[in-house]
Amino acid sequence: MASTVLNHALFFLLAVFATFSMVQASDPDILSDFIVPGLGSPNNIDGDFFTFNGMRGIFNSQLPPNFKATKASLAEFPALNGQSVSTAVLQFPAGAVNPPHTHPRSAELLFVVEGSLEVGFIDTTNKLYTQTLQLGDMFVFPKGLVHFQYNGDSKNPAMAISAFGSANAGTVSVPANVFATGIDDGILAKAFKTDVATIQKIKTGLASKNA
Amino acid sequence: MASTVLNHALFFLLAVFATFSMVQASDPDILSDFIVPGLGSPNNIDGDFFTFNGMRGIFNSQLPPNFKATKASLAEFPALNGQSVSTAVLQFPAGAVNPPHTHPRSAELLFVVEGSLEVGFIDTTNKLYTQTLQLGDMFVFPKGLVHFQYNGDSKNPAMAISAFGSANAGTVSVPANVFATGIDDGILAKAFKTDVATIQKIKTGLASKNA
Amino acid sequence: MASTVLNHALFFLLAVFATFSMVQASDPDILSDFIVPGLGSPNNIDGDFFTFNGMRGIFNSQLPPNFKATKASLAEFPALNGQSVSTAVLQFPAGAVNPPHTHPRSAELLFVVEGSLEVGFIDTTNKLYTQTLQLGDMFVFPKGLVHFQYNGDSKNPAMAISAFGSANAGTVSVPANVFATGIDDGILAKAFKTDVATIQKIKTGLASKNA
Amino acid sequence: MASTVLNHALFFLLAVFATFSMVQASDPDILSDFIVPGLGSPNNIDGDFFTFNGMRGIFNSQLPPNFKATKASLAEFPALNGQSVSTAVLQFPAGAVNPPHTHPRSAELLFVVEGSLEVGFIDTTNKLYTQTLQLGDMFVFPKGLVHFQYNGDSKNPAMAISAFGSANAGTVSVPANVFATGIDDGILAKAFKTDVATIQKIKTGLASKNA
Amino acid sequence: MASTVLNHALFFLLAVFATFSMVQASDPDILSDFIVPGLGSPNNIDGDFFTFNGMRGIFNSQLPPNFKATKASLAEFPALNGQSVSTAVLQFPAGAVNPPHTHPRSAELLFVVEGSLEVGFIDTTNKLYTQTLQLGDMFVFPKGLVHFQYNGDSKNPAMAISAFGSANAGTVSVPANVFATGIDDGILAKAFKTDVATIQKIKTGLASKNA
Amino acid sequence: MASTVLNHALFFLLAVFATFSMVQASDPDILSDFIVPGLGSPNNIDGDFFTFNGMRGIFNSQLPPNFKATKASLAEFPALNGQSVSTAVLQFPAGAVNPPHTHPRSAELLFVVEGSLEVGFIDTTNKLYTQTLQLGDMFVFPKGLVHFQYNGDSKNPAMAISAFGSANAGTVSVPANVFATGIDDGILAKAFKTDVATIQKIKTGLASKNA
Repeated sequence: MASTVLNHALFFLLAVFATFSMVQASDPDILSDFIVPGLGSPNNIDGDFFTFNGMRGIFNSQLPPNFKATKASLAEFPALNGQSVSTAVLQFPAGAVNPPHTHPRSAELLFVVEGSLEVGFIDTTNKLYTQTLQLGDMFVFPKGLVHFQYNGDSKNPAMAISAFGSANAGTVSVPANVFATGIDDGILAKAFKTDVATIQKIKTGLASKNA
Repeated sequence: MASTVLNHALFFLLAVFATFSMVQASDPDILSDFIVPGLGSPNNIDGDFFTFNGMRGIFNSQLPPNFKATKASLAEFPALNGQSVSTAVLQFPAGAVNPPHTHPRSAELLFVVEGSLEVGFIDTTNKLYTQTLQLGDMFVFPKGLVHFQYNGDSKNPAMAISAFGSANAGTVSVPANVFATGIDDGILAKAFKTDVATIQKIKTGLASKNA
Repeated sequence: MASTVLNHALFFLLAVFATFSMVQASDPDILSDFIVPGLGSPNNIDGDFFTFNGMRGIFNSQLPPNFKATKASLAEFPALNGQSVSTAVLQFPAGAVNPPHTHPRSAELLFVVEGSLEVGFIDTTNKLYTQTLQLGDMFVFPKGLVHFQYNGDSKNPAMAISAFGSANAGTVSVPANVFATGIDDGILAKAFKTDVATIQKIKTGLASKNA
Repeated sequence: MASTVLNHALFFLLAVFATFSMVQASDPDILSDFIVPGLGSPNNIDGDFFTFNGMRGIFNSQLPPNFKATKASLAEFPALNGQSVSTAVLQFPAGAVNPPHTHPRSAELLFVVEGSLEVGFIDTTNKLYTQTLQLGDMFVFPKGLVHFQYNGDSKNPAMAISAFGSANAGTVSVPANVFATGIDDGILAKAFKTDVATIQKIKTGLASKNA
Repeated sequence: MASTVLNHALFFLLAVFATFSMVQASDPDILSDFIVPGLGSPNNIDGDFFTFNGMRGIFNSQLPPNFKATKASLAEFPALNGQSVSTAVLQFPAGAVNPPHTHPRSAELLFVVEGSLEVGFIDTTNKLYTQTLQLGDMFVFPKGLVHFQYNGDSKNPAMAISAFGSANAGTVSVPANVFATGIDDGILAKAFKTDVATIQKIKTGLASKNA
Repeated sequence: MASTVLNHALFFLLAVFATFSMVQASDPDILSDFIVPGLGSPNNIDGDFFTFNGMRGIFNSQLPPNFKATKASLAEFPALNGQSVSTAVLQFPAGAVNPPHTHPRSAELLFVVEGSLEVGFIDTTNKLYTQTLQLGDMFVFPKGLVHFQYNGDSKNPAMAISAFGSANAGTVSVPANVFATGIDDGILAKAFKTDVATIQKIKTGLASKNA
C-alpha cells in the first residue's frame, strides 16, 4: 500500500513538475535541439511530438459567430518550448472587432488570407498608425504596443494568420483587462477622467455581452 | 566655400547619426564598457557623462499639482545606452492616480519613499493583484502587464522611486493610448461593447482635462 | 560643382549606411518601439511602413512550376527589423521537394493551408523525425537543424505558411550550399566517402537543373 | 509510517527543488507573466507575493554605524525571478566608504537621496572616472566595472538607492574577495608587486576590522 | 521495505531530473555564479567541479588513424552550464577531412596548433570562402553556416583547438545527417537532382566506411 | 581642391564610423551571417577577412620575460563581431603570475598546453576555489568572477589557450585597476582597512615594476 501512495505521490509530482518546467523555461537560445516536457526522455519522442492538429477545425467547421482567435502556442503545443515562435488563426465574421490589446512578449506579423481588415496600433508617443489590408497583405504590430483589427466589410468574413517571435506571446485585451477584473470604480473614473456612472456602464456592457 | 558646405553637411550628418544610433541600439549585452553617443570619442568622456542632474528639482521644488513621473531613461540620460537599467520618480498629490498603463520593454520595481500607495496589476489570465503599500514597501509589476497606482490618502502626498531593467522601458498609458489617439469611435464602441456616445464622453473628458 | 560632388558623395554615404545599419542590427530586444531604416525620421513613418504587399501575388497568380518560397523577412520588409519575426509562403506543385536545408537563426513553424506534405528533420544525434501532415496541421522544425518537405501527392499542389522567430532566419540549402559553390571535388569525395566521379555527377545535375 | 517517510522525503525534495529552480533560472525574457517558486501554483499567489517589506526598517531605525547595503534581489524577494530588475539601499555614516567592488551581472544606477557622495569607476583601459554627487544626482556604473562610493562629509550621513538591470546582480568586493579568502600570500605579493609582509598586513587589518 | 522503494524511486527521480535540468538550461545570462547540476548543493562543490581532465590523452597518446574531434562541452564538462563557452580539439592525420557540417548554436574560432589546414565555409548567399592556414593561424566560421577543414599535407598531421560561444554548440555533419539517417531515397534524389542509384551509392559508401 | 577636402573628410568619417560601429555592436544574435566593418560591402570580403595571423609569433619567437597575454578579440580580429567568441594565448615564464582579474563580459575556459598551472577564483560569497592543473587540463572561470593563474614551477614555462564566450570579454586587472589609476589614497586606505603608507607602498611598487 505504501507503494501505491508512493506511486500517486510521484505521479502528482511529475505532473506538477511538467507544468512547472514549461512555465519556467526561458524564450532565448536553448542548449539542446529541443526541450522534452517534464521528465520525459528524448528517446520516446517521435514526429508526433512536433505536430499540432489543433487547427484542423479551422478548415472544416462553420464560421464562428464572433471574433475568434485559435492559438498554437506553448500551452497548446509543448514542442514550441525554447523555439521562440508561435502562431494564431484569427477569424472575423462581418463587422467583427478584435479589441485593443497587447502581446507582452512579442511582436505580431499578421497575414490576411481571406477578406480584408482595418488594422491599427499606437506607439509609446501616442501616435496612431492605421491601414486597410487587402487579401494577401501583411502588417507588423511592434513588440508590446496596443493594436486592434476590424473587419469593416458588412457581409463577408475575414481571416488572418498571425506569427509571433515567442513561444508564448501572451495577450492583454484592454477591455477585459481594465474593465472586467475588479479594479475599483473610483480609480478607473479618475484614470479615465470621467464619472463612476460611465465606468459602471462600460463594466455592465462588457459583463452582459460576455455572458 | 565648398568646405563650409562640407562642414554643414558633415555636422548635419553627425547630428542625425547620433540620434539614429541611440534609436537603433539594442538593450542586451554590449561589446564595450559603455557606448559613446554619435561619433564621439571615449577620450573626451569624463565623469560628467555618467552623471544625471535632472532629478535635483524633486528635492527642492514644490509638489506638482497632479500625478507626475520624472524619468531618467535613455532619452534624458544617454550614458544608460547598453546598460539595461533606468529609473523614474513618481509623485502623487493626495488622491492622485497613475492610470492603467504598461511598459513594453521592462518590469517595474516600485519603492514607496513617502506616504502610502494602493497598487495593482492584471495578468494575462485577467486576474487582478492588488496591495496597499506603506512607507518603505516595494512592489514588482511584471514585464508588459497593465498596472496602476493610487494615492488613497486624501490629505498627504506620496512618492515612489521605480527601477526598470531596460534603459528605455517605454510607457503605454491606456486612457491616452486608446481614447485620445483617433481610433474610430465605432471600432471602440464595438471593442468596449458600449455605445458611441459613451466613447465620445470619455474622449471629451480626457481631451478637456489634458488641456 | 564641389557641392554637387558633395551631394553625390553624401547620398552615396547615406545609401550605403542605410544598408549597413540593417545588416548590423541585432535580433533581440530593441530600445525603441520600432527601427526606422537608415537616417529616416520616425515623423515620416505611417501605416505603409508596417505593411507588406509582396504576398498578394500568391492569391491571384498561377501555380509556380517548381517548388517556390516567397519570403517576408528583413530584406523584403524592413519594418521587421528588431521585431524578431518573419514568414514565408511555400508552394509545392505535385511531387515537388523543398530540399534538405537549415535556417541558421530560427526555428520554423509550418502550417499546411492547402494539400498535404511529408516533412522531416534530423537532430544533432542523427535521429530522423518524420510526419505526414494533412490540411490544417502544423509542424515545428527546431532551431538550426536540417529539415525538408515533400508533396507526395502526384496530382494536387500543396501550400504552407511558415513562421520564424527571427526577422532574418536565413536559409542554407544543402544541395546548393555543398555541391554548387566550388568546394574541391576531392574534399567532397573524401567527406562523402565516395569517388570524384559521383561528386561530379551530382554537381552536373544540380548545375543543369538550375539553369 | 511509510507515508510519513514519504511526506518528509517529498517535503525535502520540494524544498531543495525550490532553491534549485531559483538558482538555475536565467535572467532574460521569460515565457510567462511571472515565475512561481518551486512547485507552487499560480492560483495560490496574490498581491503579497509581489510585495517586499524588507526595506521598512530603513525609514524607522537608527543609522547604521558603518556602511550598510540592504538588498531587494532574488534571494530576498523571489517575485523578481525573471523580471530582470532589483534594487539596494546604501547607507553611509559620515566618512564611510563602500570599497571598490564589481557586480558581475549588471550595471548600477545610483540615486543620492540624502547627503552627498564621491563616486568613481575604472574602465577596462584603466581610466578612472570620478564625480562628486549632490542630493538628487544620479550616476551610472557600467556593467562589470570596478567602482566605489565615499561619503566625504565628516558630519552628515548620506543615503543612495541603487537600481540594477538583473534580479541578481551579485557583488564582488575587492578587499574581501582578494585579501580575505585565503589566496596564497606569495601569489598576492607577486601580483601586487610588493612583499609578503605588506600582503599580510592588509590581510590582518581586514580580518580584525571585520571581527 | 516501503522506504527502500521510496529510496529507489527518489534516486531515480533525482537522476532523471539532473539530466533534465541540464537539457533544459538556457545559454544566456544566468542568475548565479555557476549552476550546480541536479539537486546538488553549492557547499559540496570545490575546484574539481571546474576542472576537466578529458583532454589529457591528446598529449600522451598516439595519433588517431582518422579525423577525430574531442569535445569539452556541456555533456562532458557540466560546469560549463550557463557559462556560454566550450572547446574541442581537432586531430587530422595526413590527408584527413572534417566533412561539411554546421554548429546550430555557435560560431567556431579555430586555432591551428600543429601542421596546416585548408578551411572553408559557405554563407547563406551560397558564396564560398576558403583559406590555407599555417601554424598559429586562426579562422572564424560564422554562426550556423556550413564549413569544413582538410589537411592537404600528404605526410604530416595537423591539430587545431576550436572555441565556441555556447556550452553546447551542437554538430550537424552533412554526410551523416542527410545520407545516413533514413531519408527516403526518392526524396533525396529529387532534392539533389540526381537518380536514386547515385543516392544509394553514397549511402552505401558512408555505411561501409563507418562500419 | 574641394574634392580633396571632401575626400579627406569622408575618409575621416569612414574611419571614425568604422571604429564606432564596432564599439556599438552588441554580442547576442545577429541578423546576418557576419558583420562587415564600417561601410564595407560584403562583396569585397573574402577568406582573408575571417583569418587572423596575430598568433603566429607565439610559435616562432622566444619566450617572453614576464607573463604575457596575446588576444584575438574584437579589436585585433574584426570578423569576430557578432560571433560571440574570442581567444587568448597566455604565456607564463617560470614563477610568473597573472594577477587577480575579472572579465566583465564572459566566462573563461582555460586549456593548459604546456607545463602546469595553479589557478583559482573566488565566487560572490567569497569562497575560494583552487586547482593545480597538469598538461592537457581545462578549467572554467565563471562569468565576472575574480580569478588568477600562477606557474609554480621554478624552472619550466607554462602556456595556456583560453576561450571566451564573447567577442570582447574585457579585462579588469585588480592591481592596475585599483592601485594604479589615481583613486585617492585615503579612500583606498579606508576600503582596505589599512593606513595610507601601506597603500602608497603598493602604488609605488606597481608603478616602478610597470616602468
